[in-house]
Amino acid sequence: MFRKLGAELVGTFWLVFGGCGSAVLAAQFGNVGIGLLGVSLAFGLTVVTMAYAVGPVSGGHFNPAVSLGLCVGGRFPAHQLLPYVLAQVAGGLLAGAALYCIASGAAGFDPLKGFAANGYAEHSPGGYSLQAVLLCEVLMSAVFLFIIMGATDRDAPAGFAPLAIGLALTLIHLVSIPVSNTSVNPARSLGVAPFTDPWALQQLWAFWVAPLAGGVLGALAWRLIRGR
Amino acid sequence: MFRKLGAELVGTFWLVFGGCGSAVLAAQFGNVGIGLLGVSLAFGLTVVTMAYAVGPVSGGHFNPAVSLGLCVGGRFPAHQLLPYVLAQVAGGLLAGAALYCIASGAAGFDPLKGFAANGYAEHSPGGYSLQAVLLCEVLMSAVFLFIIMGATDRDAPAGFAPLAIGLALTLIHLVSIPVSNTSVNPARSLGVAPFTDPWALQQLWAFWVAPLAGGVLGALAWRLIRGR
Amino acid sequence: MFRKLGAELVGTFWLVFGGCGSAVLAAQFGNVGIGLLGVSLAFGLTVVTMAYAVGPVSGGHFNPAVSLGLCVGGRFPAHQLLPYVLAQVAGGLLAGAALYCIASGAAGFDPLKGFAANGYAEHSPGGYSLQAVLLCEVLMSAVFLFIIMGATDRDAPAGFAPLAIGLALTLIHLVSIPVSNTSVNPARSLGVAPFTDPWALQQLWAFWVAPLAGGVLGALAWRLIRGR
Amino acid sequence: MFRKLGAELVGTFWLVFGGCGSAVLAAQFGNVGIGLLGVSLAFGLTVVTMAYAVGPVSGGHFNPAVSLGLCVGGRFPAHQLLPYVLAQVAGGLLAGAALYCIASGAAGFDPLKGFAANGYAEHSPGGYSLQAVLLCEVLMSAVFLFIIMGATDRDAPAGFAPLAIGLALTLIHLVSIPVSNTSVNPARSLGVAPFTDPWALQQLWAFWVAPLAGGVLGALAWRLIRGR
Repeated sequence: MFRKLGAELVGTFWLVFGGCGSAVLAAQFGNVGIGLLGVSLAFGLTVVTMAYAVGPVSGGHFNPAVSLGLCVGGRFPAHQLLPYVLAQVAGGLLAGAALYCIASGAAGFDPLKGFAANGYAEHSPGGYSLQAVLLCEVLMSAVFLFIIMGATDRDAPAGFAPLAIGLALTLIHLVSIPVSNTSVNPARSLGVAPFTDPWALQQLWAFWVAPLAGGVLGALAWRLIRGR
Repeated sequence: MFRKLGAELVGTFWLVFGGCGSAVLAAQFGNVGIGLLGVSLAFGLTVVTMAYAVGPVSGGHFNPAVSLGLCVGGRFPAHQLLPYVLAQVAGGLLAGAALYCIASGAAGFDPLKGFAANGYAEHSPGGYSLQAVLLCEVLMSAVFLFIIMGATDRDAPAGFAPLAIGLALTLIHLVSIPVSNTSVNPARSLGVAPFTDPWALQQLWAFWVAPLAGGVLGALAWRLIRGR
Repeated sequence: MFRKLGAELVGTFWLVFGGCGSAVLAAQFGNVGIGLLGVSLAFGLTVVTMAYAVGPVSGGHFNPAVSLGLCVGGRFPAHQLLPYVLAQVAGGLLAGAALYCIASGAAGFDPLKGFAANGYAEHSPGGYSLQAVLLCEVLMSAVFLFIIMGATDRDAPAGFAPLAIGLALTLIHLVSIPVSNTSVNPARSLGVAPFTDPWALQQLWAFWVAPLAGGVLGALAWRLIRGR
Repeated sequence: MFRKLGAELVGTFWLVFGGCGSAVLAAQFGNVGIGLLGVSLAFGLTVVTMAYAVGPVSGGHFNPAVSLGLCVGGRFPAHQLLPYVLAQVAGGLLAGAALYCIASGAAGFDPLKGFAANGYAEHSPGGYSLQAVLLCEVLMSAVFLFIIMGATDRDAPAGFAPLAIGLALTLIHLVSIPVSNTSVNPARSLGVAPFTDPWALQQLWAFWVAPLAGGVLGALAWRLIRGR
């Protein structure tokens, strides 16, 4: 169990550090910044790389919504859920702290200007309402779990799951960063929230509720369609 | 059959929601928008991810032109063609509706300004004539089916087909978004057409005729070259 | 042999149509154009997709420099070299013609402004000298063949060669479009040269000599290092 | 051993030539330059392509920090470390020289304006302090080795390691180019340093110390979590 939790901690650290780090440090940089496309790719590649690295150890969830969804989907034992989530949250917070240390090493850094936090209404990047944000996060998380259930099914081609799942996360970001800054992962939202403006913690509930609800729905939808 | 149709519905939903969603929500966003490159990647990744998720269930067509082409290519039974197409159309329309709900959650949203509909002449993104649009769509759809026939052939390396086919869709978009906004998929065109200006429905015929014709030609070309 | 040549013709058609098409139609398009990054990805994906589709038929060369290099490398019979090259050239020219038909369907199209031709000195995109262009093309083609020899070796993991080789072509373009517009493929250069300003045909020799020389050097280098 | 060293030399040449070449020649180019996203992709693809090409020959390290980390991780014999590092350094320097030859073939080339060297403080692209640069390079190199150890483990799916490791390098660049221009590879830093302003050689120590330290830490972290 120590090994599994260590793998989840490191993996979630990498997801938050790599994904949010690309957003904070490199999305806008002169006229060569990586933009939302680069940030989307970065989030996806954190999962691709860590799922190949520690998938055989812990399953490579790195996300409370994934752990819960897989639990509902019959692929993950319920008694491991809480320890997994705690390890993921710890990894996310460590990543937020490490990113803060590095980002503050440049003159002019202002953590109040975003720090990759998720938000709705006036804190949505594109000004999307709470309703639109919740719908989007539930839907994206549901499809994410649907894909995870399918790509790790015994009928799916072996070895490709990390690629399919990581690229699904890239795709989700390609669509929804303007809406909510894209969470679909409560540990990612929590990991950076304490390091920026207080609104991030006040709006945090939405990025626990919606991804967890979506994850459950997605896993159930897959079972319905797959028939097992 | 229920499982197959459910998989096609969900997969086509994801293709239209993810692909058109990236175009409507994220293509242009301040100076960090994902541009046509990001939209091209998004369309391709919808197929990569869903083909790994439900390929073993339904074959992962998500596109009437693919279903028809595979039928002509001898890989898909004719009696399943109509149900597949209906499920794909339903998934596409659901995606258009869901995208409309989310997009309208931001102030200033105007569905008349595009909504990712396909068009020709004055409604082609780059002002391409009907002839050029038809030629491009037929050609692209033909090569798409040629690649699908080849990548799913018994001689092709196992497991890579979703990657090859999804990346083919990315490539098709990299070339042809300026021409027709890229269809090669009647269900994708129909899925968003009702939610924007009436011209989208008036020009819809072209994005059924050309992809279906191209799909048939591509499947026949592959059989000619492969000799079976 | 008919099947092999048909596969090479279709594959080279796709390489030139997809790669050069992305450059002509989509590289610059308002503020959402795909840029050199999108063009680089497009060229690579033509090879990824067609190598999965027809690799088992013809080997998936799509490039006279590849056919010659593999011949020198002991992987391709010399008596098939000329027919392969002719099929590749035919495919490239058909692609140039098809691209011309589509591109000319938009008002304001001017084939004299580039059409993705390769050039040196005043016709190099970044104004690179003939010497720099030759060095770059020889070097790139040599590494390209080195990677092809390695990725298709019996010791390499099965099934990944199309991905490795296609992504190598993407990488080559990421580096060298500003230098020569990137050829490393005589059939690609010849395919578009007749459709633009006469300088493209006058400078065409360089994009046959350098890729062919580089291809031979790369195959020999691999044999030297591999020891067989 | 000659074959192994030859493979490491060619592979490191390609890493430095392809990665730094994309930065020097193509990152900024009119309004179609590839930006930091394209440079990140280029660095990663050098490893993807060469690891498929010569992985079976030498293991495909192309990086002194990788060789040292794998040594500490129990995967690489200590007596081969020095020859590997020398071959990597030679490949890197050859790449720097070749890139200089090509880049200087365009009017207006000024090697003092960067040449993709790594730096800190006033020579960090985004003005990051020495502390931030060291922390970032140690952290990135540690995670890099962690992923390498995991993706090449006997439990990991066969054949995917080059993809996972190369894409990890892409991800590392997506995050950290603004911080240090991204090294995580002493041979890459040394390869270009002699060809630009003297500060690059003066600051070179940091890009040997930090990647080597990070590599050791990452390999140890993986052994701790994996338990072997």
